[in-house]
Amino acid sequence: MENKYAIGIDVGGTTTKFGVVNNKGEILVQGRIPSNEHDFIEDFIQELYAKLMPMINEVGGIENIIGIGMGAPNGNIYSGTIEYAPNLKWKGIIPMADLIAKKFGVPAKLTNDANAAAVGEMMYGCAKNMKHFITITLGTGVGSGIVIDGKIVVGHDGFAGELGHTIIRPGGRMHKNTGMRGSLESYASATGVRETAIELLTQFPDKESLLRNYTINELTSQTVFECAMQGDPIANEIFEFTGEILGESLANFVMFSSPEAIVLFGGLTKAGNLLLNPTRQAMEANLLPIFKNKVKLIFSELNESDAAILGASALVW
Amino acid sequence: MENKYAIGIDVGGTTTKFGVVNNKGEILVQGRIPSNEHDFIEDFIQELYAKLMPMINEVGGIENIIGIGMGAPNGNIYSGTIEYAPNLKWKGIIPMADLIAKKFGVPAKLTNDANAAAVGEMMYGCAKNMKHFITITLGTGVGSGIVIDGKIVVGHDGFAGELGHTIIRPGGRMHKNTGMRGSLESYASATGVRETAIELLTQFPDKESLLRNYTINELTSQTVFECAMQGDPIANEIFEFTGEILGESLANFVMFSSPEAIVLFGGLTKAGNLLLNPTRQAMEANLLPIFKNKVKLIFSELNESDAAILGASALVW
Repeated sequence: MENKYAIGIDVGGTTTKFGVVNNKGEILVQGRIPSNEHDFIEDFIQELYAKLMPMINEVGGIENIIGIGMGAPNGNIYSGTIEYAPNLKWKGIIPMADLIAKKFGVPAKLTNDANAAAVGEMMYGCAKNMKHFITITLGTGVGSGIVIDGKIVVGHDGFAGELGHTIIRPGGRMHKNTGMRGSLESYASATGVRETAIELLTQFPDKESLLRNYTINELTSQTVFECAMQGDPIANEIFEFTGEILGESLANFVMFSSPEAIVLFGGLTKAGNLLLNPTRQAMEANLLPIFKNKVKLIFSELNESDAAILGASALVW
Repeated sequence: MENKYAIGIDVGGTTTKFGVVNNKGEILVQGRIPSNEHDFIEDFIQELYAKLMPMINEVGGIENIIGIGMGAPNGNIYSGTIEYAPNLKWKGIIPMADLIAKKFGVPAKLTNDANAAAVGEMMYGCAKNMKHFITITLGTGVGSGIVIDGKIVVGHDGFAGELGHTIIRPGGRMHKNTGMRGSLESYASATGVRETAIELLTQFPDKESLLRNYTINELTSQTVFECAMQGDPIANEIFEFTGEILGESLANFVMFSSPEAIVLFGGLTKAGNLLLNPTRQAMEANLLPIFKNKVKLIFSELNESDAAILGASALVW
């Protein structure tokens, strides 16, 4: 095992990140390619191969690679397939693990991207030594990985842990990709924050706000954060609102699996206490007394792409 | 083990049921006492002892009893205590398993009542051979037991699986015991059905309904059921409404743990398809495509008290 390495690949909606990882969980070298520039999965894999092989050669060639672990949206650990992922270009059922194994000539495993991140968190991050926790990725969408008794929850079919799609505002905001109303993802994601901004600016046309200085395309969770830091009341209200909905959802999750901690990561966590405080308040307010003041609500110490690459590579060991 | 027996005790909000169970999962003899007639736990245990000992003597005396298993609201498997159960008279933390073990002189174990029922379902009921399922008890309240990979989910502190208290209508109906708004239990319980009936009858004072022939005290989930069976439109609407909320909640639970089946039991299931059809419809409508038409929604084949007694006794084996 001395000079053996694993490849970790994280297929995201926009970007695919990958790295060569040693058995201490160190990413020796990493890279990225866009996820959605190829209509055919074979062309995507070809580009991945072209970028990865030089890295693999840096560590002594493919014979030093034990295997490839991947995380992807709607990835299924049982079958190694990506099934009907709404945010990817390749439709239907993609036998990703098989295609990768053939292309590289080493064993390949695939799981859900959020589950891969949770494994990374458990092996190398702030959930080390925890047996019961939930990770929530607040990015373009909302992903989740659930760990119970030290094991990722995958359910009877491999698809468990889609907490971003649980309904928290029945009849509420329409989710464009799923057509469902009121799901957590339609509020507590970067996309959701942008929509909340547009809604509030439209709803109160006379309320002054720094956010009115931006064009509609410039309104992002990042601009909302910057304006909130300057004390803008609407921008602050956006994070209050987002945190309230997120916190209510987290309370529901706690009453399901009673975790020791909830680990938040992804772009939205850059908002820090602006998001964390209202989230914690709403979570505690909606918990039964037996759960109150027990659950740690923390930000990941790993950066997001590291967690996903490390978690994916951990499938190999 | 030939002539050895276990005692199963199910402490409910109103009634405590108990039985002597053999190692084939047959209840040889059973009885019941009210749960809430004694202010002091010691007096309750004394009555239980007085009723159980003759049964125990029927099977050859206490030396033939391997142990006592109990299910109770807010029961904790790690500590054997009942902690702050809102529906029981005894407040604070009750060391139930210890008290019972001392009184009877045999080992005693305690868990959450709904978890006990789930174990009964897994060992002797319609979830036999299933490794991933959720049981939902629709009684005076809403209880739940979650099984993942063949094991009851208890969480880091032993309190997991309080799905009746998850919020499905934020800001909605007030739950009298918890003070929380919009929890599943405030709608999809016998109490909730009665409240929905009163709300609808008050909201539409001119709408004819058989339910108006009953006094407010006579309005129960049972009378609503009887009127619905006679085609009463308001009574039918009550089950539609209840099923819709229950189904939405079930969809959320499915996206958490992706179970093979959800097993419903408790008094409300007497409504049969009146409840099952709208529940199934709302559940399917709120699931991501990858979960649709996969999850069995079934009624328990065990009667409720059998499931709980058997499940509690199974803690002993």
